[in-house]
Amino acid sequence: MLSPDRPITSKEIPMAAAAILERIRVRTPRIHCITNAVAQNFSANMLLAVGAIPSMTIAPEEVGQFALSADALLVNLGTFDAERRKAADIAIDVMVKQNKPWLLDPVFVERSPPRTAYAQLLLEKHPRAVRLNRAEFTALAGTDVEGATLSRFSALHNTIVGLTGEADIVMDYGRLVCITNGDPLMVRVTAMGCAGSCIIGACLAVEKDAWVATAAGLLILGVAGQLAAKQSQGPGSLAVNILDVLHNLDGTALIEHARVV
Amino acid sequence: MLSPDRPITSKEIPMAAAAILERIRVRTPRIHCITNAVAQNFSANMLLAVGAIPSMTIAPEEVGQFALSADALLVNLGTFDAERRKAADIAIDVMVKQNKPWLLDPVFVERSPPRTAYAQLLLEKHPRAVRLNRAEFTALAGTDVEGATLSRFSALHNTIVGLTGEADIVMDYGRLVCITNGDPLMVRVTAMGCAGSCIIGACLAVEKDAWVATAAGLLILGVAGQLAAKQSQGPGSLAVNILDVLHNLDGTALIEHARVV
Amino acid sequence: MLSPDRPITSKEIPMAAAAILERIRVRTPRIHCITNAVAQNFSANMLLAVGAIPSMTIAPEEVGQFALSADALLVNLGTFDAERRKAADIAIDVMVKQNKPWLLDPVFVERSPPRTAYAQLLLEKHPRAVRLNRAEFTALAGTDVEGATLSRFSALHNTIVGLTGEADIVMDYGRLVCITNGDPLMVRVTAMGCAGSCIIGACLAVEKDAWVATAAGLLILGVAGQLAAKQSQGPGSLAVNILDVLHNLDGTALIEHARVV
Repeated sequence: MLSPDRPITSKEIPMAAAAILERIRVRTPRIHCITNAVAQNFSANMLLAVGAIPSMTIAPEEVGQFALSADALLVNLGTFDAERRKAADIAIDVMVKQNKPWLLDPVFVERSPPRTAYAQLLLEKHPRAVRLNRAEFTALAGTDVEGATLSRFSALHNTIVGLTGEADIVMDYGRLVCITNGDPLMVRVTAMGCAGSCIIGACLAVEKDAWVATAAGLLILGVAGQLAAKQSQGPGSLAVNILDVLHNLDGTALIEHARVV
Repeated sequence: MLSPDRPITSKEIPMAAAAILERIRVRTPRIHCITNAVAQNFSANMLLAVGAIPSMTIAPEEVGQFALSADALLVNLGTFDAERRKAADIAIDVMVKQNKPWLLDPVFVERSPPRTAYAQLLLEKHPRAVRLNRAEFTALAGTDVEGATLSRFSALHNTIVGLTGEADIVMDYGRLVCITNGDPLMVRVTAMGCAGSCIIGACLAVEKDAWVATAAGLLILGVAGQLAAKQSQGPGSLAVNILDVLHNLDGTALIEHARVV
Repeated sequence: MLSPDRPITSKEIPMAAAAILERIRVRTPRIHCITNAVAQNFSANMLLAVGAIPSMTIAPEEVGQFALSADALLVNLGTFDAERRKAADIAIDVMVKQNKPWLLDPVFVERSPPRTAYAQLLLEKHPRAVRLNRAEFTALAGTDVEGATLSRFSALHNTIVGLTGEADIVMDYGRLVCITNGDPLMVRVTAMGCAGSCIIGACLAVEKDAWVATAAGLLILGVAGQLAAKQSQGPGSLAVNILDVLHNLDGTALIEHARVV
């Protein structure tokens, strides 16, 4: 059993993720997403499928109000524009003032120096977690991915690193967990990673330990993707099936299929 | 048989909806939608599935031209921003001048006071129908949902109220119809309500009695959703199947499955 | 066998398309799309399914950087607005300076005079191909579709015309190919044409003969759509199945099902 008295370890992540999934369904947290236009619909459907309530406005006039009643905030830098930057600044400030969690997904920073620069500014506003792939980490950290650089990045920015790829690695400055669920077909569905970040957002909304929440989010996505891929003929059906699987996923199946080291 | 000489009653809604569905397919009306980014793709696909022709531009420079050749206009306030407000104002004016129908979907007004204020301004421009849920009605009307408040709202704004929820209620100041089709899974698909408003738009384009058109639109959506849910494993497949069902729906099936009081 | 020494003829298009499809999968070209909000997600998924890497930003601050590392650019005029115009101008200039291909999809120009005017300006920037339907051609060329007008348009603007409809016609000023693949259900899926233009973009990225690339793109889309339609109950499942089919399509099946005159 999970004990509230000591930090959760990597072995306990599946059990913790099952508990988090249950809490999402009971509490139906509100997740506000400032995300790119490609990802908006799929992200909203992912959040609904997992049991959360998405909102997506990027209008500076009202994003502060939405953040005020949200339980977590995702800022995703794909389709990065002046309006989204303004909205992100407002919404992050509201979350930080209320001590509510927000996370950063610095999509494609390696393709655009102004995007990298903006992502670095946002890191100073203390996201609870940063989800990114290897190329994005390298651009943002200015150094290659290694255990030590991940750990240093985590310590420097006081954040959790959720590095996704063939295996997902979640790291704070003391703990590391490696998740090998998922399926190669998942990268052929646009915004799959962005939607995964939304699920981390839902986990952060109901779990204070951000390392646990980040790992739980990636585990939930990985198991759902893996189960969905088995039923799919290609990326089209995978994008549909993952929503069905996520909607029907229970803690027992999550624990049974978890591949966590 | 439906008679042209007297207003249609609630019992006749299924038959009227079947006739409207047929007219949409014959006339292929053009529906212009100023809607949120989350809903745009699904809404366009819903309109195509029902037999209408969607257009979606929000650019102030050209939205007037699109409205000029449209048969109905939907204004949806999700992802509300300055550009969409400007576009809505232009497009509504064109529709009103031509005496062509437009309808309002005040998504999430309860989450954002500036959105509520703007929705109230739009109500003065006489939408033929307003589709909203209970929380949105309460925010907009400043009062709880009851038979009397719905009726008063309808009279005050000279519009049809299409209140959606477990049961859908369509009201003008004299008539009321209650539709109990649909499926609980529908709320787990993002933009399902927004897409439903688009279908009402298609009905308004081919039916002058806005109360009948609003009821027909919600009935078509409800029956399609219910039939699609039976074939679906979760919200992912529901979003796919509802388009297939809608595309294949005929008047006989619509009447057979209608649950109207 | 295809010879590098002489231009490919219409009969050889299926074989050339099979080779192009193979090259896309090996080279995984980057296709930057400035496209409408309705089409963004489906277009990205189409590109991923065919084996290319999509990017979609429209922010003027960074679109130049994306164009710099892209192998082809699509400019689609649906949801045409000031920001997208600015982004298109920047991105096209980058592509032209690097002598890399870009193509134009002048969606719905017949509905909006300012859109037509802007499309005409863009034609002066030498797109390698223009994909459009009959109504769009008529608005843009100021004349009806006939063999002679297509050919004159192609010569005047030094571009390939990819005219889509019941049959697709691809023309330069000397060569013509007619493709009769596809399925009537395809027009009931929003952004199917836009996504088709993206596939042409992927072909242009790996094939210098723009007439061959345009024909290959439309053939790949047509065959995939036709095979997918056979397995589909309506437009919802078609949109899913075409991604699966595209992902699994190989050169043999492409050649086997090609209907090319």
